[in-house]
This record gives sequence, C-alpha cells and structure tokens, in this order.
Amino acid sequence: MEVNEKFKELLCSVKEKKPLVHHITNYVTVNDCANIVLAVGGSPVMADDINEVEDMVSIASSLVINIGTLNSRTIEAMVKAGKRANKLGIPVVLDPVGVGATPYRKETALRLIKEIKFAVIRGNLAEIKILCGMNAASKGVDSEETLTDDAKEVAKVCAKNLNTVVAITGVNDYVSDGNKVMVLKNGTKMLTTVTGTGCMTTSLVGTYCGVTKDYLLAAAAGILTMSMSGEKAYEKLTEAEGSGNFRVRLIDEVFKLKGEDFMRRGSINEVC
Amino acid sequence: MEVNEKFKELLCSVKEKKPLVHHITNYVTVNDCANIVLAVGGSPVMADDINEVEDMVSIASSLVINIGTLNSRTIEAMVKAGKRANKLGIPVVLDPVGVGATPYRKETALRLIKEIKFAVIRGNLAEIKILCGMNAASKGVDSEETLTDDAKEVAKVCAKNLNTVVAITGVNDYVSDGNKVMVLKNGTKMLTTVTGTGCMTTSLVGTYCGVTKDYLLAAAAGILTMSMSGEKAYEKLTEAEGSGNFRVRLIDEVFKLKGEDFMRRGSINEVC
Amino acid sequence: MEVNEKFKELLCSVKEKKPLVHHITNYVTVNDCANIVLAVGGSPVMADDINEVEDMVSIASSLVINIGTLNSRTIEAMVKAGKRANKLGIPVVLDPVGVGATPYRKETALRLIKEIKFAVIRGNLAEIKILCGMNAASKGVDSEETLTDDAKEVAKVCAKNLNTVVAITGVNDYVSDGNKVMVLKNGTKMLTTVTGTGCMTTSLVGTYCGVTKDYLLAAAAGILTMSMSGEKAYEKLTEAEGSGNFRVRLIDEVFKLKGEDFMRRGSINEVC
Repeated sequence: MEVNEKFKELLCSVKEKKPLVHHITNYVTVNDCANIVLAVGGSPVMADDINEVEDMVSIASSLVINIGTLNSRTIEAMVKAGKRANKLGIPVVLDPVGVGATPYRKETALRLIKEIKFAVIRGNLAEIKILCGMNAASKGVDSEETLTDDAKEVAKVCAKNLNTVVAITGVNDYVSDGNKVMVLKNGTKMLTTVTGTGCMTTSLVGTYCGVTKDYLLAAAAGILTMSMSGEKAYEKLTEAEGSGNFRVRLIDEVFKLKGEDFMRRGSINEVC
Repeated sequence: MEVNEKFKELLCSVKEKKPLVHHITNYVTVNDCANIVLAVGGSPVMADDINEVEDMVSIASSLVINIGTLNSRTIEAMVKAGKRANKLGIPVVLDPVGVGATPYRKETALRLIKEIKFAVIRGNLAEIKILCGMNAASKGVDSEETLTDDAKEVAKVCAKNLNTVVAITGVNDYVSDGNKVMVLKNGTKMLTTVTGTGCMTTSLVGTYCGVTKDYLLAAAAGILTMSMSGEKAYEKLTEAEGSGNFRVRLIDEVFKLKGEDFMRRGSINEVC
Repeated sequence: MEVNEKFKELLCSVKEKKPLVHHITNYVTVNDCANIVLAVGGSPVMADDINEVEDMVSIASSLVINIGTLNSRTIEAMVKAGKRANKLGIPVVLDPVGVGATPYRKETALRLIKEIKFAVIRGNLAEIKILCGMNAASKGVDSEETLTDDAKEVAKVCAKNLNTVVAITGVNDYVSDGNKVMVLKNGTKMLTTVTGTGCMTTSLVGTYCGVTKDYLLAAAAGILTMSMSGEKAYEKLTEAEGSGNFRVRLIDEVFKLKGEDFMRRGSINEVC
C-alpha cells in the first residue's frame, strides 16, 4: 500500500472509531484543541485532577500531555496519567511547549520523558533540541531558529536517543522513529499568526495515535492534517480577512478534510 | 398566555434586565459560555476562588455550576457558592459534564446535589440517568446512548426524585418538573461537532433562570435558544464552511434571536 | 513629530521587534488575549506557576497582570513576577477586572498596586475609581456607570495618586500620566457584546509597552488599536452576522491595522 493510501485509511478510521483523546493541557489553547479533535472526527476529553486522571485515561484511546501552562498540581496528574496509560498500552503524546524558556519547564519535561514512555513527542526545532540536551535558542514558546536541513538529523538522532517518534514542525516538518525520516512540506506562514497551531497539531497526532500502532504514520498524519488544512484555509481567505477568519477557516478545513487530500495535496517524502 | 408568548417575554426580560450569571465552570468552554450569555443579553461573570464566590454569587441573578474540569479547589468553591445562593434564593443550575466517566465525577456530582438545591439540572440522557442511580453507558463527556422515548420518562422520574427541573438534551430535548414534560424538537446534528454546545445551553438556561421563577420555562427557553440558533446557523452555512464557521454563526444567531422565533420556529409540545 | 506619526512608528516597532508579552491572566479570555497580541505583531506567553514566573518575565519585554479569575495560587505568582519585572525595568500593566465586585478582588488589587510599580493601569471608570478609593457602582465585571466628563478628571487624579499611567475605557477613552490627558473617541458599542475586549485592550497596551518607554503613548496606542479595529470590524459586518463574526473580524482588523489608520481614523485629543 502506498503511504498516501495509508493516510486515507487512517482518517477513515478516526471518523469511524471516534477515539477518545484525553488531554492534560494548557488553558490558553484548550478550546481549539477540543474543536480540532472534534473536527477531524475524534472525541476530546479534558481532565486534570489527580483524583480522576487514571480513571479517565483508562477509557481513552490516547493521552495528550501539553506543558503550555504547567503548574505543580497538573504536573503530578500528568505523571500519574502517563504511567497508567503506559501500563494499559495506551499511547501518550507529549508537547513540550516552551521547554527552553524556563528551568522549571525543562526539569518538568525531562521528568516526564524519564517517567513516561511516549509514543510521539512533537515540538519545534528548539524544543526538541533542548529536550535532547543539545544547544538551542528559545524565546518564550516560539522557536527563533529557522528550520534547516539540520532538523532532519535532529529528528532522527533524538528519536533514537529518546526511543520514541519525534516530530519537528516548522517551515518543513520532519518525523522520525530513529530509522526512517519523513519530510513533509505542506503548510503556510499564516499558521504562525494564530496561537495554538502547534498544540492543535499535537492533539491531531494524539487523535491518530488512538487508532493505529504505527505512531510514525500517526505523527505524520496529524501534521499533514494541520498543514494541508492551513494551506486550504489560506487559499480561501478573502481580501477583507486576517488571522481571525484564518483560525475559523482552519477548523472548517480540518472538518472537511478527505482522504483524497493526502494524495492530491500531501508533499510527503520518506528518506533514511 | 400561550407558551410561545411566554418565551418571547422571557427573552425580552433578559435583554432588559441583563441578569448577572455567575459561573463556576470548566476552562475548556468558558469563553464560549461567556459569549453566549452576552449574545442572548445577559452579563456573565466567572469567579471560582473560595475567598470570593460567596460575595460574587450574592450580587448575581443566578449561578451555573459546571463540572467539566472539576478539581479539588473548585469543588469546595462550588459547594460554598451553591449554599450561599440557596440561602439567598438565587437559582442554581448544574451541568454534570461526563458524570459517568470517572468515580470522582460521580461522587462530586452526588455531593453537589446532596448539599445544594438546584433549580435546573441539564445533561444528556446518560448523565441524567447516572445522577439518578440508573444504569447508563458513558464515554468521556459524550453520551453514546441514542435518545429514545425512554428519555421522556427519565426526565420526569429524575425530576421527581431529585426535586428539581431536569433537562435532557439530545436529538430531541425533554424538560420536566416531575409533573409536566415539555418535548422540544429543534436542533441540528451539527451542534455535536462543536465543543461546549452542552455547556453553552446550560449557561443559557442559567441566564433565563435569572429573570423568572418558572424554571421549567427557563430551562426550555435556554434549550430552544441554542437549538433554534443551531438550525439557523446551519441553514446559513456555505459550501466552503465547516464546524469552525458553524460555531461563529451559532453565536451570531443567538445574538440575533427574536421573540418571534419561538413562535415561528419553536417545536414545543407539553405532555403529561 | 505629530502624535499620529508617533503611533505609526510604535506599530512598526511592534511588528519589527515582536515583543514577548508575559501574561498572568484569567482563563476566560486568555486565548483571545494571545491571538490579539499575535495579530498586532507581538509574541504572547502565558505562565503562572510560582516556580517559573520570575524566569519567564526576565526574558519578556513586558508583563500583563489581569485579575479576571484570580486565585490564591496565581496572586502570589503575580506579586513575584511583578517584583522581578520592576527590578529589571520591565514594564508591568494591570487590568483590575471587576475590582469592585468582591472584597477579595479589591484587597488583591490594592496589594498589587502597593507591592508592584505599574507602568499602566487600564480599567473602566468604576474599576479605576474603586482602585483610587473613590465611590463607584460596580456590577460583576462590567461598569454600570455611564462615562461622563468626570472620567477625564478621574484619570488625571488617579494617575497622579497612583503614580502611573491610568487608562479609562468606555464610550470615550481617557489616558493620563497625571499631567496630560489624552481623549480618544473611536470605538463602537458592538465591542461590549463580546467578552474580553477590555482584557484584549490591556494586552495590546502591554504589547506597545514592550517597545517604548513612553507609557502614555503606549496606553493610547493599545486602546486605539482596539477601538479603531472595532469600528472597522463593525463596518464590515453583514446583515446575517452578529457578535460571533464581530469577534472574528475584530482580530482580522487588528491583524490588518496599518500605521496610516491612526492618521485617517484616529480621534485623538491631548488636553491638560
């Protein structure tokens, strides 16, 4: 089966199975994450109290952990939920938002990757580098670094070191399981004008992880769903519209995405 | 006065009195809840710290308690605010989001209905059943159960048992005070593609409860405001639009709703 | 240089420098605050844990403190972040949301202005009056008081008393450093139909404060960015649209705002 054909199947599978995607995430972009999961066909649930996260994740198809607005209360819930998910074989996805911005974020992220086995970790180049102990410039939650060919190598090395699928998003996107690297070239700069497009991408990755054991493919599917929908939203934007309507149209396009879009529009290259 | 005429008066009353609706709610859909209350003509205020909830609810016209992302800190605030509201005769509305998903939610919801007298409890069929000690399948925060005629009976029995108005929303909606049942048939499946349409409905119910003592009517008005606006938003959706624009148009339609819409469009039946 | 020319330069400066604006804010309007900062050209970051706020604010260009959903945990983080910002010469902006609604809000706001030196405080007339120890009617988070000429005097006196720039927004807006008062007359009533337009204005003020030491000008620029964009959004609203699309178009217009708009559309008067 061609890789494009596999993405099509994955999208169908999401719409059919409606995976329950448990999120422990930040309060800034949480509503957009819920709506994007619904738009692609999944079922989001947000729960972060330590008294219920183990029960919630037990009925979920996947768990998304996002440290965007981490605090001491929710960190413990993340660890507890992640460990339970690991025990039950439920895939866990990490978004290490702004991991380079403060020591507290870095310590937390390092604790999480030590205590939890992640199926996929998605971040920008700086975030992934920092997580892997490489040097990187970070400013707040946005990466200053321009994505270069270097990202391909970073994805591969980090995936091997962290024993997980690593997804680096930016102008181009790189997904690796430590052996293969998929290079994805869809997207639009307009995606950087809306908050939470990174978080939403991670939530989409989590949704696809809920219906397959091929986490490399799931990560790529999540990224392509966002980047292709971003392109389509941008193409429909009228002269009178800006980042407000772009955000609305982005959800529209994820909602309307068809399996065929991966064939027609997806720019996907597998390399080694 | 005809029932349709009463809804019209209720909407006018909201726009005139601008009731202050105090929310202790989840961080996922809170912004939409605030905007929907403003759209219908009310004035939302969100406050959940135990040091201020009693003072805040004292100046409010109604209180909405929503357990969507409950935690140990806010649960105590819910109880305290609810008790104060009861003492002052301010109506309290409960949304037992995902009550069947975890034991912690169930315990919390049961504690709330034990310690607080609610004017209205609004949920889907599974949530209401669980609250009443009946068996029900629940998956995350969404009900898997198809609404059947059974819902009419459940609404009535639960309203009697819980000594409150019970509103069950789904394909059809059922509102009962334990004697009468109102069957409401507006709506569109599109409402299930956006997060928080249930929460927003509860916030609308809370808004109407702020201007009348007829909580059965207020519950029905809140539900109809959402379901009729959903229909209208769906009708205006263009080929190029999906769930993103639907959500935006939904707020538009609540904002533009007129008393006449209840007459022209409302599908309302009172049964016993 | 004319004052209009200065606003133009300020907007250019934001787009060029992309100031990092650290927020400790409420969970109701936080997403809109992030998107409005991005729309004008800044870079928002939200972080409220006491273990990281000092580190985060140290790399920021400005700090916005908003007490919309204050709680005991975040209040301590506000104080800590504010003090560090003061030490580093990073401007701090306060939004005393609903300060008159509960004693807890008032105590907190008074503690904040005692322990932190603010560059700008932005609120409605009632909020500013209460902060200054004047009598004012407040209902929830919205001001009931109609803005009169009295606001001009209040802005000036409070700015002098509190030793900061004070910005009072309403039908007309008044910004003062204790000597000069700027009277701004743009805007539309439609801005009151959307939650968070006050918070977003404060975030815009914070963004401009990140690129200039002229906080009077920065406050006026933030207010004008919102009020002029509100006007433009309202003008583009179609018959079929309401407060949902107005909110989306508002972000569009901030995104599309040009320096020339301050000349063409800005209604700005400096008085003494």
